[in-house]
Amino acid sequence: MLYAGIDIGGMNIKMGIVDQSGKVLINNSIKTESDKGSIVVIDQMVSNLKFLCDKIKVKLTDLEGIGCGVPGVADSKKGIVTAAANIGWYNVELAKLMTERTGLLTKIANDANCAASGEQIFGEAKRYNNFVFITLGTGIGSGIIIDGKMVEGEGSAGAECGHMTLVYDGIQCNCGRKGCWEKYASATALIHQTDDAIKKHPNSGLAQLYKKQGKISGRTAFEAMENGDEVAKRVVEQYVNYVASGIISLSCILHPQAFIIGGGISHEGEALMKPLKQKVDKYVEVSNNYPYVAVERATLGNGAGLLGAASLLMRNND
Amino acid sequence: MLYAGIDIGGMNIKMGIVDQSGKVLINNSIKTESDKGSIVVIDQMVSNLKFLCDKIKVKLTDLEGIGCGVPGVADSKKGIVTAAANIGWYNVELAKLMTERTGLLTKIANDANCAASGEQIFGEAKRYNNFVFITLGTGIGSGIIIDGKMVEGEGSAGAECGHMTLVYDGIQCNCGRKGCWEKYASATALIHQTDDAIKKHPNSGLAQLYKKQGKISGRTAFEAMENGDEVAKRVVEQYVNYVASGIISLSCILHPQAFIIGGGISHEGEALMKPLKQKVDKYVEVSNNYPYVAVERATLGNGAGLLGAASLLMRNND
Repeated sequence: MLYAGIDIGGMNIKMGIVDQSGKVLINNSIKTESDKGSIVVIDQMVSNLKFLCDKIKVKLTDLEGIGCGVPGVADSKKGIVTAAANIGWYNVELAKLMTERTGLLTKIANDANCAASGEQIFGEAKRYNNFVFITLGTGIGSGIIIDGKMVEGEGSAGAECGHMTLVYDGIQCNCGRKGCWEKYASATALIHQTDDAIKKHPNSGLAQLYKKQGKISGRTAFEAMENGDEVAKRVVEQYVNYVASGIISLSCILHPQAFIIGGGISHEGEALMKPLKQKVDKYVEVSNNYPYVAVERATLGNGAGLLGAASLLMRNND
Repeated sequence: MLYAGIDIGGMNIKMGIVDQSGKVLINNSIKTESDKGSIVVIDQMVSNLKFLCDKIKVKLTDLEGIGCGVPGVADSKKGIVTAAANIGWYNVELAKLMTERTGLLTKIANDANCAASGEQIFGEAKRYNNFVFITLGTGIGSGIIIDGKMVEGEGSAGAECGHMTLVYDGIQCNCGRKGCWEKYASATALIHQTDDAIKKHPNSGLAQLYKKQGKISGRTAFEAMENGDEVAKRVVEQYVNYVASGIISLSCILHPQAFIIGGGISHEGEALMKPLKQKVDKYVEVSNNYPYVAVERATLGNGAGLLGAASLLMRNND
């Protein structure tokens, strides 16, 4: 059985055709020409999907359906993109418009929810019935799986864990509130924290690395720490504290079997995961007798967006 | 059909027999002699249950079962009280011990989860399929209902929303972490905030009310505010901000249809609820197109503990 996966991003739309095992038969990406409006973008997606089908000699009608991941609030029950500010889509009937053009069943969800679904269907998280997926990227995205089902809240407006408060009255967030978790624990936040440390410690190894590389990324502090710089070590420690604190809060609320960590910062591997696990474990120890909560890296890697979108069609119990 | 409800508290155990409509046929309370150990307490509960049955001329075996609310972590699937520090119970096989002594099916849950269940089965919250119950008392208790089911996390260790972080690195909590929501938004926290304001403003109406009454309760600031005192008004405003901030965080994560507010502070009625609703509404407005989230008072009142415990037996889909 074949499924189309479409991962709509602010810059590019990644598209592919995958089978039920999660094998990507073909994929490519097209530019997101969001300035032309949603209908043009949807028409382009459909043209490209037909192109992909032709390439592997499959008819559009051979597909079981289309799954779309959306960078914003997507009402998965109604198939409507409620609000995706990045691409300027508001109340776009994406599922209906795709079905009208292709005759195929179309399911949509927020991109982080898709990623959670992908990890559940195709990734190592398939062994968990209850987990929270967290992506440490430009912001913090999340997806919640309880009893095997995706929990999105009314109108799919929940699972926005990046906007829970971590620091009351803290840094202003563009959601309108202050002190949201993602203002402290996203890749963007780490870049700001790294920048601050460089300014405060212009002679540190961290500052030297920055001078050498000419720019700051989510990697910079981790790399300088590996080189033995104490300032960078403190930046990373503080950052991991922020990540851990949000995860522990979510554990108080949902106490899942596992947290699955994805997004750019997750590529730091053990330098992130080891101290993060220690901090979460310590909390579980403090709260004696509580069941263990695993903290693991996401396993799908680059194909996560596509696979997650396609996996929406393989869910049968939400 | 008749059900026994047992609400185990640190000081007293409230017990009663209720019918399927939530009518309490008889109830009383016994002291919690926790210093004598769990077995003695359980034996006392069973004796008292027999006494209550006798009083209304019902045989123990006429009951459908026993529901127990526990002030701590209670693994509802296993029927084991994992940890209830207040009464010194750790790994107590409560359900099994009650069934051995009575022959009756026994279900157990954390007391706040019971209260959420009671509001769902017997209260106005029955019209909601997705809601979060919050109790503003000595601490902050909570119960989460999603798709009509109680969500308690692994080992029922979740739904402890009072311990999510509100203020990173804030006030030390006895859970081992800092800045937990309940250190800012429980009745106990309000009492501390009122005390601080009295010390800072010894000539305020709030301080005068305290001098007159001789003690501070969760009511004091609300009462002084009603009398027109500006200091008290600021205390209440700040307190409501703390309550709202936690609720909005939970809304980001779960976006339920409603938050149901119980516990001592909820008796302040509109003085609490009106500004609380305004703050939650404002957030929903900021995050445009999100579905409305209701904020309502719990409706069961004093019998909530009993009814909640009994309601555990009337759940058929968790």
